[in-house]
Amino acid sequence: MPPLEPYKRHLPYTYALGLYPAIQALELVPSLVSRVLVHSKLGTGEGARTLLDTCARLDIRVEQADRVLRRVSGKDNCFAVAVVNKAFQPLDPAKNHLVLVNPMDAGNLGTILRAALGFSYTQVALILPCADKDEPQTVRAGMGALFSLNVAEFPDFETYQRFCGERAFYPFLLSDRALPLLEAVKLKKSPHSLIFGNEGSGLPDSFMDLGQQVMIEQSDKIDSLNLAIAAAVGMHAFKNIQ
Amino acid sequence: MPPLEPYKRHLPYTYALGLYPAIQALELVPSLVSRVLVHSKLGTGEGARTLLDTCARLDIRVEQADRVLRRVSGKDNCFAVAVVNKAFQPLDPAKNHLVLVNPMDAGNLGTILRAALGFSYTQVALILPCADKDEPQTVRAGMGALFSLNVAEFPDFETYQRFCGERAFYPFLLSDRALPLLEAVKLKKSPHSLIFGNEGSGLPDSFMDLGQQVMIEQSDKIDSLNLAIAAAVGMHAFKNIQ
Repeated sequence: MPPLEPYKRHLPYTYALGLYPAIQALELVPSLVSRVLVHSKLGTGEGARTLLDTCARLDIRVEQADRVLRRVSGKDNCFAVAVVNKAFQPLDPAKNHLVLVNPMDAGNLGTILRAALGFSYTQVALILPCADKDEPQTVRAGMGALFSLNVAEFPDFETYQRFCGERAFYPFLLSDRALPLLEAVKLKKSPHSLIFGNEGSGLPDSFMDLGQQVMIEQSDKIDSLNLAIAAAVGMHAFKNIQ
Repeated sequence: MPPLEPYKRHLPYTYALGLYPAIQALELVPSLVSRVLVHSKLGTGEGARTLLDTCARLDIRVEQADRVLRRVSGKDNCFAVAVVNKAFQPLDPAKNHLVLVNPMDAGNLGTILRAALGFSYTQVALILPCADKDEPQTVRAGMGALFSLNVAEFPDFETYQRFCGERAFYPFLLSDRALPLLEAVKLKKSPHSLIFGNEGSGLPDSFMDLGQQVMIEQSDKIDSLNLAIAAAVGMHAFKNIQ
């Protein structure tokens, strides 16, 4: 086995850094965990026992590797890491989708994935360029949500559109022609895609003719909502309001 | 005038770091800006002109101070800073409040303040201990929302309760006795306080008897929503759904 490197996007694996994230990876995607690294200071607490018992039960190799842990985590106090193979996760074209066009912030992306799982948008399309869904920081910010979702990258929106088939598109835009969210949800059709743009620039104008534009009711005292906030408010309303 | 220090909580002033945040501070709280520092590389672009014109109009002192800028921002590429005096901002007991009990993450707090302004919860109570609302990182994450809100700290919830008078309390908790958000909003009374706990531990059990508990509808596949997400979804629903 080649030596483990600090995470890079081109690697075929990522890291669930820390005791709880490692246990989560073992529970949610056991077939993708190739091995688990532990620190000599892991201890014998409940978490450590759960980790080691789970590895034994699943026949997953555990190595004590203080220096490698330091190298891949960049920290002195990371006592466990699960090495998780990246998986191709095709979206289900029959289900509702969350579509993020060029989200660039890794921590924010993790937060959005956690909210997507919380509001049962289990199919997430990312339009490139975008932050790396597999980056350890994203995995951590998402508290392992990545392992429970189908998240697929597309080179551009047209490719996504060819893939996803007939459906209703709801681009979230601040424009004169957008319906307020609470009105839009009353007319919602499924399957649908909720579409959000980049953190700074939002969606390009080309999305204006794509479907029913939606805007989240907000004060004119702010320029725009944070992307994770907007996506969460949108998903909550579309999921729960009839 | 004493030399400017890197930001610390006990200082009577904070910093709006960067060209756009500095302009925002000048526009929103001109009487609190004591001076503006600029870098020799500020340039003559539109933003730079707006900054300098606004300072001239308001008779606010501008100093070129490359080394001080480096010291207070910790960065080489911060070309403008507004020095903003902290203000005591009493809450209006007749209005609806957002109450955050022990929020500890500065960036998250900024995001919440921006959402609070976006959803017109302009009165925010923070229960100590908590992240520093005036920290430059919070100011920046909130994109200046702090300057448009009334944000007050209270040593404990009891002190807040004595201050805020008769009102409806809505503690957000995952408990058997909590009403789903979309049902709770239909019964809402005003003035009210939406109350959220700490990022990791949520609200203590003592909040269970305080008023109508509310829970945000969410999948059991996640432990909890991110605090900023939960607060935003709650505020949006309480503000907009009748």
